[in-house]
Amino acid sequence: MSNWRKQDLVAGEALARRAFLALESETADPPGVTRKAYGEGEKFAFDTMLNEASALGAEHRYDAGGNLFLTYPGKDRSRVVQIGSHMDTVPHGGNYDGAAGVIAGVAVMAIFHAAGSKPPFDLCVVITRAEESCWFPYSYIGSRIALGILDKELLNTLKRSDTQRTLSEHIAEEGFDPDGVRNGESLIEISRVVAHIEPHIEQAPVLVEAKKPVGVVTGIRGSFRYRTGRCLGEYSHSGAMPRQYRQDAMAATAELIVRMDDLWKEMLAAERDVTVTFGEVTTNPEQHSFSKVAGETHICLDVRSQDQGVLDDMREKYIALALEIGRRRNVEFDLGDISGSTPALMNENLIELMKSAAEEANIPYQVMASGAGHDAAMFAQAGIPTVMIFIRNQNGSHNPHEAMEMEDFEKAVEILANMLARPPEAWGE
Amino acid sequence: MSNWRKQDLVAGEALARRAFLALESETADPPGVTRKAYGEGEKFAFDTMLNEASALGAEHRYDAGGNLFLTYPGKDRSRVVQIGSHMDTVPHGGNYDGAAGVIAGVAVMAIFHAAGSKPPFDLCVVITRAEESCWFPYSYIGSRIALGILDKELLNTLKRSDTQRTLSEHIAEEGFDPDGVRNGESLIEISRVVAHIEPHIEQAPVLVEAKKPVGVVTGIRGSFRYRTGRCLGEYSHSGAMPRQYRQDAMAATAELIVRMDDLWKEMLAAERDVTVTFGEVTTNPEQHSFSKVAGETHICLDVRSQDQGVLDDMREKYIALALEIGRRRNVEFDLGDISGSTPALMNENLIELMKSAAEEANIPYQVMASGAGHDAAMFAQAGIPTVMIFIRNQNGSHNPHEAMEMEDFEKAVEILANMLARPPEAWGE
Repeated sequence: MSNWRKQDLVAGEALARRAFLALESETADPPGVTRKAYGEGEKFAFDTMLNEASALGAEHRYDAGGNLFLTYPGKDRSRVVQIGSHMDTVPHGGNYDGAAGVIAGVAVMAIFHAAGSKPPFDLCVVITRAEESCWFPYSYIGSRIALGILDKELLNTLKRSDTQRTLSEHIAEEGFDPDGVRNGESLIEISRVVAHIEPHIEQAPVLVEAKKPVGVVTGIRGSFRYRTGRCLGEYSHSGAMPRQYRQDAMAATAELIVRMDDLWKEMLAAERDVTVTFGEVTTNPEQHSFSKVAGETHICLDVRSQDQGVLDDMREKYIALALEIGRRRNVEFDLGDISGSTPALMNENLIELMKSAAEEANIPYQVMASGAGHDAAMFAQAGIPTVMIFIRNQNGSHNPHEAMEMEDFEKAVEILANMLARPPEAWGE
Repeated sequence: MSNWRKQDLVAGEALARRAFLALESETADPPGVTRKAYGEGEKFAFDTMLNEASALGAEHRYDAGGNLFLTYPGKDRSRVVQIGSHMDTVPHGGNYDGAAGVIAGVAVMAIFHAAGSKPPFDLCVVITRAEESCWFPYSYIGSRIALGILDKELLNTLKRSDTQRTLSEHIAEEGFDPDGVRNGESLIEISRVVAHIEPHIEQAPVLVEAKKPVGVVTGIRGSFRYRTGRCLGEYSHSGAMPRQYRQDAMAATAELIVRMDDLWKEMLAAERDVTVTFGEVTTNPEQHSFSKVAGETHICLDVRSQDQGVLDDMREKYIALALEIGRRRNVEFDLGDISGSTPALMNENLIELMKSAAEEANIPYQVMASGAGHDAAMFAQAGIPTVMIFIRNQNGSHNPHEAMEMEDFEKAVEILANMLARPPEAWGE
């Protein structure tokens, strides 16, 4: 049983289908779609949503960095619930990563519009720029600008990977105001924001495997990364060098990987949230040979968790393992520079609200962490109560084969509409 | 106490110092020396030895492929003891790899000459061409030609890495006879050869660590190699893909390496001769990323042993491990093509003869395997009783920093001279 009349939900569905189709055909770049940050495809997507929302009577404002705020008036106009995501894609990406979240927000407006009802607060769809770090090598640029917290140095140092022109130049070129960004101008008044909700396709097969259409996200994993690690041993003859004199960088590296993998298994058994990935590992191609003990390897580690304590613990153990293995195997690990991000916990009350909104519509959901980073992390870290809903999606993201089913998308929209129908007290107001 | 007068040994030493110096200055190619197979530097080295041996009254003959046979007449001219090695080097190699063995043989002639005595059989220094496979990508070309067993197809298919001209062309260009090589012409009558002895610098630090000037070699390790192995998994998001759904090619590869390394440790504990080297291991650089679970790796394994049974056993275990790990981790190992070589055992009687010749001169020695391949493997496999003596050498070989001490070299020469002074019955005749 739905809270909504069939025709109200159909209004949201129709808008969504129209929008997805427009994006798919107008930003096609076979295989897949390409919507560059501050590029033509992104602009087309923003314009599409602006037109759809305006037709529903939404107000609109751009901030200095070109983020778009589409506001559907609520009963209490002094407060706002935000639904937001981005519209850029990786080159030859899929049509759903980012866009699904924005379209879901505007579809919720369409449902309220068709029903002739109002949400308890303003519903603001926040469309952010430049989320995909393939364009400018930095995370969450649009959200940081929206919150007025982008490091102003970055305006002149970040260059778009295809044009080599600066972020500042690209912002100006699209008709926006780099100086406003530099001054931290923001349209968001944090104290007015009741909630920020980011719907997003899932980028792993958890929902597919769990056979659930949607996921209620408990947190966005933070990370630490050692992307430039090396193991330094000594090259020697593969047939002639006895085991006891070897300084085999590859054998030591393999042991480090296996030991970290064992540690991961232990952490999961103890129900600690963590992932461990060695995505790049290579003996040095300029010197390696089948007949030489490897004298050098490159090692890249990415560890993620919702729990900063787990990250700290894993980092300490990584350093200790590298020391111990290095000493025993007579090689030296140079782990390289560390980088990473802070975990962002989703708001408990919003998690419960989302669960009950799903239960109300008899929609099964999976409670889960987000392994990938999302704009929502920025809003949560700014102190805004934040939650995410994941939509089941085949084949991962950042590729042309993303395969979200519209039926699952519509379930997510219905959950959002149910949430937005709740009275102020349900939001903790 | 030496069997030889001081001045006899000095004659050998003087010849050796002169020859090493000539080679070092005339084939210099800083850093180090370069003597290409069938190139100018190799020719200079051959000529140098021809001149030195001729001055001692040695006879000489070239075979069809340009291998040089320098014969110092013995008491029984119907039989022959061969001492041999090669004179080519890798680009910017050291002065000792190969040349030390040849010079040692001619230095033994000089000792007999100075002493005015004759060995029991003809002493033939066999100088082979083209041992370093960096020039023509094939092993032991000169020895195979000397034995009349080079696959004739190779004359036209092997091309020198720098000129791209064929082996046949290079042989002809040096004034030798490719057709003779093609017809398997050989100057070696196997039934006449009492022994083949190859002196060579050690290419690992076993003698340095053991503080012994020379090594008595029990066998030349054979090998099996899987040079083109791959592990095929599936790329996925490093933060979002849960452990249980991963197909992580790198984690699986690391486990395979560690398990083979553990196996090696067990084999050594059981006193089985073996080396295990993964010299090249890489995630696919065209697709890997710090934020992607690795979907593919390249794996290259080299296993060596004196014992064919050990090689067979290790190969079976490698295949079984790859299957077991692949199944458990949901990836597929494609081990690729296998190649390798057969172990060559040194002759027991010659090993004992060499040991007693060392003991006679109070020279400490290490009994050891050769991990690297040598021309001697070809002679042993042709059925000729064969042995090798290793000379202590710092810094490995195939680099400009080879650092054999002349004192150690002279000890090896004295051992050889002692062997050559033994009567026919000591040789099992």
